[in-house]
Amino acid sequence: MSGSSFGKAFQITTFGESHGPAIGVVIQGCPPGLPIDQAIIRKALDKRKPGKGPASTKRKEPDTPLILSGTFEGKTTGTPIMIMIENKDAKSTSYIDIASIFRPGHGDYTYQQKFGIRDYRGGGRASARETAARVAAGAVAQLVLDPYKIKIQSYTIGLGGIRTSCFDADAIEKNPFRCPDMEAAKKMEQRIERVKNQGDSLGGVVEIKAVNVPAGIGDPVFDKLDGDIAKGMMSIGAVKAVEIGAGTAAPEMTGFENNDPLTPKGFVTNHSGGILAGISNGDEIVVRVHVKPIPSILKDQKTLTDTGEPTLISTKGRHDICAIPRINMVCESMLALVLTDHILRQKMTGNDFRPIF
Amino acid sequence: MSGSSFGKAFQITTFGESHGPAIGVVIQGCPPGLPIDQAIIRKALDKRKPGKGPASTKRKEPDTPLILSGTFEGKTTGTPIMIMIENKDAKSTSYIDIASIFRPGHGDYTYQQKFGIRDYRGGGRASARETAARVAAGAVAQLVLDPYKIKIQSYTIGLGGIRTSCFDADAIEKNPFRCPDMEAAKKMEQRIERVKNQGDSLGGVVEIKAVNVPAGIGDPVFDKLDGDIAKGMMSIGAVKAVEIGAGTAAPEMTGFENNDPLTPKGFVTNHSGGILAGISNGDEIVVRVHVKPIPSILKDQKTLTDTGEPTLISTKGRHDICAIPRINMVCESMLALVLTDHILRQKMTGNDFRPIF
Amino acid sequence: MSGSSFGKAFQITTFGESHGPAIGVVIQGCPPGLPIDQAIIRKALDKRKPGKGPASTKRKEPDTPLILSGTFEGKTTGTPIMIMIENKDAKSTSYIDIASIFRPGHGDYTYQQKFGIRDYRGGGRASARETAARVAAGAVAQLVLDPYKIKIQSYTIGLGGIRTSCFDADAIEKNPFRCPDMEAAKKMEQRIERVKNQGDSLGGVVEIKAVNVPAGIGDPVFDKLDGDIAKGMMSIGAVKAVEIGAGTAAPEMTGFENNDPLTPKGFVTNHSGGILAGISNGDEIVVRVHVKPIPSILKDQKTLTDTGEPTLISTKGRHDICAIPRINMVCESMLALVLTDHILRQKMTGNDFRPIF
Amino acid sequence: MSGSSFGKAFQITTFGESHGPAIGVVIQGCPPGLPIDQAIIRKALDKRKPGKGPASTKRKEPDTPLILSGTFEGKTTGTPIMIMIENKDAKSTSYIDIASIFRPGHGDYTYQQKFGIRDYRGGGRASARETAARVAAGAVAQLVLDPYKIKIQSYTIGLGGIRTSCFDADAIEKNPFRCPDMEAAKKMEQRIERVKNQGDSLGGVVEIKAVNVPAGIGDPVFDKLDGDIAKGMMSIGAVKAVEIGAGTAAPEMTGFENNDPLTPKGFVTNHSGGILAGISNGDEIVVRVHVKPIPSILKDQKTLTDTGEPTLISTKGRHDICAIPRINMVCESMLALVLTDHILRQKMTGNDFRPIF
Repeated sequence: MSGSSFGKAFQITTFGESHGPAIGVVIQGCPPGLPIDQAIIRKALDKRKPGKGPASTKRKEPDTPLILSGTFEGKTTGTPIMIMIENKDAKSTSYIDIASIFRPGHGDYTYQQKFGIRDYRGGGRASARETAARVAAGAVAQLVLDPYKIKIQSYTIGLGGIRTSCFDADAIEKNPFRCPDMEAAKKMEQRIERVKNQGDSLGGVVEIKAVNVPAGIGDPVFDKLDGDIAKGMMSIGAVKAVEIGAGTAAPEMTGFENNDPLTPKGFVTNHSGGILAGISNGDEIVVRVHVKPIPSILKDQKTLTDTGEPTLISTKGRHDICAIPRINMVCESMLALVLTDHILRQKMTGNDFRPIF
Repeated sequence: MSGSSFGKAFQITTFGESHGPAIGVVIQGCPPGLPIDQAIIRKALDKRKPGKGPASTKRKEPDTPLILSGTFEGKTTGTPIMIMIENKDAKSTSYIDIASIFRPGHGDYTYQQKFGIRDYRGGGRASARETAARVAAGAVAQLVLDPYKIKIQSYTIGLGGIRTSCFDADAIEKNPFRCPDMEAAKKMEQRIERVKNQGDSLGGVVEIKAVNVPAGIGDPVFDKLDGDIAKGMMSIGAVKAVEIGAGTAAPEMTGFENNDPLTPKGFVTNHSGGILAGISNGDEIVVRVHVKPIPSILKDQKTLTDTGEPTLISTKGRHDICAIPRINMVCESMLALVLTDHILRQKMTGNDFRPIF
Repeated sequence: MSGSSFGKAFQITTFGESHGPAIGVVIQGCPPGLPIDQAIIRKALDKRKPGKGPASTKRKEPDTPLILSGTFEGKTTGTPIMIMIENKDAKSTSYIDIASIFRPGHGDYTYQQKFGIRDYRGGGRASARETAARVAAGAVAQLVLDPYKIKIQSYTIGLGGIRTSCFDADAIEKNPFRCPDMEAAKKMEQRIERVKNQGDSLGGVVEIKAVNVPAGIGDPVFDKLDGDIAKGMMSIGAVKAVEIGAGTAAPEMTGFENNDPLTPKGFVTNHSGGILAGISNGDEIVVRVHVKPIPSILKDQKTLTDTGEPTLISTKGRHDICAIPRINMVCESMLALVLTDHILRQKMTGNDFRPIF
Repeated sequence: MSGSSFGKAFQITTFGESHGPAIGVVIQGCPPGLPIDQAIIRKALDKRKPGKGPASTKRKEPDTPLILSGTFEGKTTGTPIMIMIENKDAKSTSYIDIASIFRPGHGDYTYQQKFGIRDYRGGGRASARETAARVAAGAVAQLVLDPYKIKIQSYTIGLGGIRTSCFDADAIEKNPFRCPDMEAAKKMEQRIERVKNQGDSLGGVVEIKAVNVPAGIGDPVFDKLDGDIAKGMMSIGAVKAVEIGAGTAAPEMTGFENNDPLTPKGFVTNHSGGILAGISNGDEIVVRVHVKPIPSILKDQKTLTDTGEPTLISTKGRHDICAIPRINMVCESMLALVLTDHILRQKMTGNDFRPIF
């Protein structure tokens, strides 16, 4: 069944395992005539490339995207676009010792239960490596969003229990965590160093925003814009919670406090996160995702072998200490995919975007 | 496009507006031979019926479900099951004054932007009334779950800022909020009374659990079990955040703390919420949803007319003060729908459930 | 699974059994703002109404379509349109004697094998009655086609072995078979009378045309326009063959003979049936369907009981002698549904229709 | 939109253009644990390989299938299987002269109208080369059918107007057309030689059979087994008509003649082609497809340039004279894909196959 496909109008289908020959994506529904080249995809992939910050693995993923169909003379043709990334730095030997042991916090046990067989090398299909295909697809989606001047940005508002206390847009690119609070970023770095020395790992909180999204996209009643965003974000391996707008703070308010008043200048507040009744209202789309700590750690943990015998395991492969900031780009890509899907779907209603403010 | 459909193997399609002649659902993929009658559906609908607690509208919805297809001599036949509920207590006159005004916190403005036309009566398609169709479908889904002894239960852990501080399963049915903490329930009641007198409204937090879900359901990589749950829950009108297992607390832990160790007796902890890499691990499925306060309030709020003129609005129709406890049953139904869909999907892998503990 | 749904952008989902309380359809993806009322649907249903010609059953189906959602003040709203038709003239008693016998040529045996249970009354879900829901949906689809001036017409070119030898458009409405050859129509009538007296039944051949279909609709490579037409037509119970354009005559020609030359005035011939590489070329869409004789006959036939015992059966219920001309309207509706689906899909490419002739 | 995807439970998504870097397919829903290797795929591809008979192009397509995901240690894992075939013998230079001319009988004009851009090299996405991906996927599908002993075979019953007059199974592999009538095969060869010398091309008729298909697969009412077969076959570029069982001969019979009587030994006749009411009845599945002549011919034909100027065109690239016998394997593959999809879907009904004879 189509479990590896996402979207309806703009639909991606990903394939590939961490240590197989390649991963990639087939994109259906991309409009024809959009300018495209390898550099656009590569630039997006570079943003999730490992090895930059203190939280990242040293595994080198050159991540050269090969565009193998759906384009002609530098433009999309309207037919399926296939983008493939070969797995060049995959050392399977690192993983043989976990062939018969279920790593806690990973999908080893559940894949085995589901399929009765699993490619244990590096997590196989469950590896975060799979998200590179999403990022490649997200870069193509952004081509559809560009004419609307829709821009998507993510930043880190929590890492290892440290939360930001201010928002300085300029700070985001000045620290390795995409944190908009330089003070918090420093503490995050210290926290990572300490935890790294303990052979442990950390999680964090990412906020993603999209501006210039026209009012009117998103479908009643199941394919709500926030419904699809929630699915898209939660489908990223490490994500354990998704918030839209006020999110978990919404139930703390009364209706009067939470409702966003409309004025000729627009909405006074944005507790809705830019989405009302599942449809964009023209305000900023605001999403937050909560990312669990990387499950692969150097510390010994209790677990079972695949025959049910108790054992201890500690991870020896190359792993990030924290999914941040690499996961940020994946979140941006998922948001781009959802918005593109719904922008195209809206074309079928025949209703132009005519905002009243 | 199929925006009002949910699920792939067990697929529901809902229709209907709050003040139209009827709402209902077509269910595709229900296995044949399951015992079914009106009473099963009615019993589920009664759990979301208004008018029981202090937070509920006085609108009477008899909610008599008519099973109009897909059954024969008390059993499902494998063909589409259509269940319809007529809208008998819908007074459109209450809503004429909002025909040209956008109510804050509602979908009025966004529907208008999307479609250029809207059925303004009672929110039309965006009304919470639509969720009755989900509950009817959820009751059918539960028939598929019964042989697995899968049970789904919801309870309220927050309302109007008041959070529970203990879990007493016996308390749930003993107060009007399905709150497992009688002390908290009392405070919730007081809070509601006060806010009601102020013409305002409240939100809350619901936790939903499913037990006896076999390990192995959920599909890589987009149709993850938690991905589909997140979409299902977020597609409920008032929901602004969805958590799985540790949820927003996961990023506060280290990997060592968050990982759930496996032992021959099962998982030691359940921070995963019963889902690893998008696939059930046999432990309890744990979901939390954060519900915004009801947007319809008696207080005056700033807004616009549909020609962009500033105005004030206060709601005069019959409305709940809080979506809890009615939304709880909707959440249970959405979880039942997702689990049923994936239980059926798993049959196609040909892999039986063979848990190691 | 979604076996009772058809279309992707404009998607219909039908429900109902021949002798259940009702049949109907939910239409998703209909654009908002289209004028709609019961009369439009009823007019279409009247075209497949039984009891008009010599080949039709005397069963009276009032077929009053109830539009229960998705419209407001005489216009579509963009939300799901549900149309229901109650089964008022269904006499189940006529069918009790076939509860345990498999009628040859019907789905009795196959439904039993598939589901282990079946609603035997009047064929249940397999009844031609189901096609009324398609016709209702087709009438809504036509609303989308109207602005393009797309017109769909069907006529009968074969019945009981008698084929037309000329095409007189005026003749179509002047005989009970929608036959464009009055001479042939007379012979068809005689053939029907003779076969009727023998307690037997007949099949026929229907041609369906659509004019003014813009060049450019239909999707590579599986959702080709002709692929979807073939599925739509073959999904009508009695259809055993589908041809596009030259159809079965195409292999009799050489490439030079079969290719349709392009000139500034358009295509010289139309062997393609208006479709090249699965995409409309602006010429007339031409489809032919071959309809098997009605399987319900008065003559004794060999068959089995549901326990495998040999027996004889002859049908005593009310049945048509030939599916023509009632099936013609069903074919028109299926073509309308496919064209509407692809007209809407084409909007997403962002490419306007710019024919060169 | 998902126009390049086919199937719901066993779903394939193809990509690639004739003269792009590669073509291929992503297969979703393949059950885990099936033995697979490159040889199985290659063997299937060899059956549609050009260059064998007198009707084939001399273009060499080595067609080495690369299995790049979804398998581990020689077995399927249940995750998406991606198979890619590089385009090694594609000479784009042959096609530059047709960059601005619409070839009659091809998709050049319709692709241009649809997308406003087209990869003109060798037909791009519309090339028959695309069907290699279907054949690769069909070989995987056959792995699912093998345990049921389902065998699919195709043979040629018409070519260039010459029809077979007998069926000799042994003859099929003994002539280059897969023709079960050696006399007819000789005439076909002569016909091809003559037409070849005239610079023209031919079409033909292929029959495809599947044996051992269990009774009970196929879904009411749109996803009928014959409906899906019709779509699958008609989606092959050159196919203009599809018949099931008696097909176009069905309307020539009376109901008594056409109905297949049931006896304890099975059905007496098989006019139904093994499908009743869209569901398999356990008898042989019989399908016929009518293939138009290859549109690329050496003769001069009238056409237009992309600016609407009249011109003449004759094809100079390497082309087959007739799609037969290469298309036969494509038809077999499409049938395998449809049967596999419905075999898997049937697992969800929970109803085992229990034939009564």
